[in-house]
Amino acid sequence: MSDDSSTRIVADLRRWIASVPPGTRLPSSRELRQRHRAGPATVQKALHALAAQGLVESRPGVGTFTLAIRTPRTVDFGWQTTALGTAGFRDGHGPTSLETIPNSVIGMHSGYPCRELLPEKLVRAAFARATRAENLMGRPPVAGLPDLQSWFATELAGATPDGVAPVSPSDVVVIPGSQSGLVTAFRALAGAGRPILVESPTYWGAMLAARQAGVQVVPVPSGPAGPSPEAVAESLGRTGARVFYAQPTFANATGWLWPRDRADAVLDAVRAAGAFLIEDDWAHDFAIDAAPQPLASRDDAGHVVYLRSLTKSVAPATRVAGLVARGPARDRILADHGAEALYVSGILQTVALDVVTQPAWRTHLRRVTEQLRGRRDLLLEALVRHAPQARVEAVPRGGLNAWVRLPDDAVVADVVARCRADGLTVGDGGEWFPAEPAGRYVRMNYAAAEPSQLGRAAEILGAALR
Amino acid sequence: MSDDSSTRIVADLRRWIASVPPGTRLPSSRELRQRHRAGPATVQKALHALAAQGLVESRPGVGTFTLAIRTPRTVDFGWQTTALGTAGFRDGHGPTSLETIPNSVIGMHSGYPCRELLPEKLVRAAFARATRAENLMGRPPVAGLPDLQSWFATELAGATPDGVAPVSPSDVVVIPGSQSGLVTAFRALAGAGRPILVESPTYWGAMLAARQAGVQVVPVPSGPAGPSPEAVAESLGRTGARVFYAQPTFANATGWLWPRDRADAVLDAVRAAGAFLIEDDWAHDFAIDAAPQPLASRDDAGHVVYLRSLTKSVAPATRVAGLVARGPARDRILADHGAEALYVSGILQTVALDVVTQPAWRTHLRRVTEQLRGRRDLLLEALVRHAPQARVEAVPRGGLNAWVRLPDDAVVADVVARCRADGLTVGDGGEWFPAEPAGRYVRMNYAAAEPSQLGRAAEILGAALR
Repeated sequence: MSDDSSTRIVADLRRWIASVPPGTRLPSSRELRQRHRAGPATVQKALHALAAQGLVESRPGVGTFTLAIRTPRTVDFGWQTTALGTAGFRDGHGPTSLETIPNSVIGMHSGYPCRELLPEKLVRAAFARATRAENLMGRPPVAGLPDLQSWFATELAGATPDGVAPVSPSDVVVIPGSQSGLVTAFRALAGAGRPILVESPTYWGAMLAARQAGVQVVPVPSGPAGPSPEAVAESLGRTGARVFYAQPTFANATGWLWPRDRADAVLDAVRAAGAFLIEDDWAHDFAIDAAPQPLASRDDAGHVVYLRSLTKSVAPATRVAGLVARGPARDRILADHGAEALYVSGILQTVALDVVTQPAWRTHLRRVTEQLRGRRDLLLEALVRHAPQARVEAVPRGGLNAWVRLPDDAVVADVVARCRADGLTVGDGGEWFPAEPAGRYVRMNYAAAEPSQLGRAAEILGAALR
Repeated sequence: MSDDSSTRIVADLRRWIASVPPGTRLPSSRELRQRHRAGPATVQKALHALAAQGLVESRPGVGTFTLAIRTPRTVDFGWQTTALGTAGFRDGHGPTSLETIPNSVIGMHSGYPCRELLPEKLVRAAFARATRAENLMGRPPVAGLPDLQSWFATELAGATPDGVAPVSPSDVVVIPGSQSGLVTAFRALAGAGRPILVESPTYWGAMLAARQAGVQVVPVPSGPAGPSPEAVAESLGRTGARVFYAQPTFANATGWLWPRDRADAVLDAVRAAGAFLIEDDWAHDFAIDAAPQPLASRDDAGHVVYLRSLTKSVAPATRVAGLVARGPARDRILADHGAEALYVSGILQTVALDVVTQPAWRTHLRRVTEQLRGRRDLLLEALVRHAPQARVEAVPRGGLNAWVRLPDDAVVADVVARCRADGLTVGDGGEWFPAEPAGRYVRMNYAAAEPSQLGRAAEILGAALR
């Protein structure tokens, strides 16, 4: 089935539909197949597209007929201004990391790896199996498929040292992607109007989730070795916050990794304050120089609430993540998840579990590590050569991104716009800062572009800085 | 591949694993196949299950090995009591409609139709097609797949009378199920702390969503002909609410349908108050005696915000719904959806669209209507015969449920428990009332049970009432 030929048939039929009165019968599928020299699936796909666009309707046993196209009149929604008020208003644009761009542009702005780094064969095979499975039509429990809960628990337990009680499967809540997990965790553990600590810089999606949950963001400065434990303790004490949101492993956008000692000291500060650490282990499957060691595996008193998503490493189509929490915190998170989502599609859970339990998944992850290392090194070398004005202050130890510092007199928005005009999209570093940025940065996702494009990307950035 | 034999292999191997030291190599797949007289897929499935349970690990090229099973120690989560406080606490149980029950029980408590009423062939075929599709690995736009937006818009436009501007595809936001749509709509249109009007009785999921969004629920009495327009106008005026949530078509749990004149008068009251009507068209695909005529099709000034879910009629696995709004309300809903979910799995959108655009979908819906009519009539007749103490005050015109009134001296919880003990689950009517119930009711989902079970169900209820 060719996408192109079905698109061509749609275009031809749209012209024809515009020229005939509503209610006209379309040529039969057979006539269309002959006229366009296309297979039955292609013609069927074209007819579906026209039906979805509201241009034709199918009357079973009779045929397919054109529909009237109405001209909309202008309507005044002014009354809504009063009804909506200003309280829920968000200014500004949506997440730029989700923008789609033309193929001709080198896209390094997104938060996702390119298709070549996804386990496409495994995902397709898993979907094919799940499609045939007996339980396809069923409804999974609110907390998730038991086997998937077990898998998330086992992954954490595997890193748990002796003397620490490992999490159990019932501590896992399967959620529809990490974004909703962040909103749920912020709402359940802090609550509207309350403060939460975040690193600065931090993940933009977490700030969006914080606004959504109505919590107040309090920034703590971070660096290549993570935040200072004293600063964390001081901020928790001063603000009364009981939640610290962090990405200790390959932070987005910097690729920084908290060293083991530092991580334990921060965890001690959180414990001493009677607080929660929400550990967003977003890049667990994107290690380069070091194996991820979740803090959650070294806590059994319920201080660490752990979030691990499979969306980016398995496939955007499988929006599944695990949220691990113990004690009353787990009960609150489960109740909040139930009220918000009821349950997560069973097939997405089945597919995610299938992919990550295949032996080939480990092979795939090793290949991803090699690919990421190669792309990262290519980009860093190219930046030194072609964009000497820019600097990567600490080599990312994992993750998808290089956090590139521009000269202090650069205007980031202008640099981003000049790159875009020359065929390169990068992320404006300001989006990762909760308040005024500590420097001028852009984020470049080396996992989103082709390796062969990375040299050209560095040239474009270099030119934009001149 | 047999589920039973793979379960048997898992049970056997669990016993064996408990008897050997950690790190022991499992017999090879071939040995297991011979020992259990099972096919390779069955053995593979058993090994996956053991891996997911953390009992074994596979080392590619070497074999599968047993893992140590740790004994968890008891941990004290008392510190969380202080950290969490009481503000986010929810008392009571989760939604009883989502409970799973043994096969031996006649299950009429759930909110879903039984598997025989789902278009299983269409869903399996659509998943199979989507699994092979080129775009499986892609990420859809935040507002949804354009073709699915078009389909939702076209469905509404089909019912739109002349002189009313039909909605356009860009007015549609595709969301991950109607529960999250309710939370989004309540939060975006009313906002925390503000009142919203609901019918009494109303859908329990809407009250759960209201609590989640932090809005205050104000009940308006409803009946077989819907709420009185004067009562709606008075409540909007008195409370200052700018949102009225309702199910005008085959309400859950009553099956009531607002007559056309009444619906228009209520819409006028909402318009006059400068308010929104959130129309939850949950049972659009479950008509029995009348074709659904959404109020949203008769409003083009942005007063009606329309919610249509495909979860219950297509499959629980496809958690996809459309939220239709115009003007600034649409912008707010889209921003809220983006912050909460980022986007909905592309494959679920593709599958839902595929199913509802097949010619066989119409045939399926006609069959569902006949099935629902047959089951409803069977249940109502059986209740008259076997449970004369109970009364259905108005025959449900559509939907899945009979709303059964018990004698005024009945204690509903006791009746529900006695039915349960005798092998029948029904919903406690109190869950559909925002405050004190106006009468003693149970909800019986005639679409969830087998037609052959409906007589026995009525007998059990009759006995429980004696």
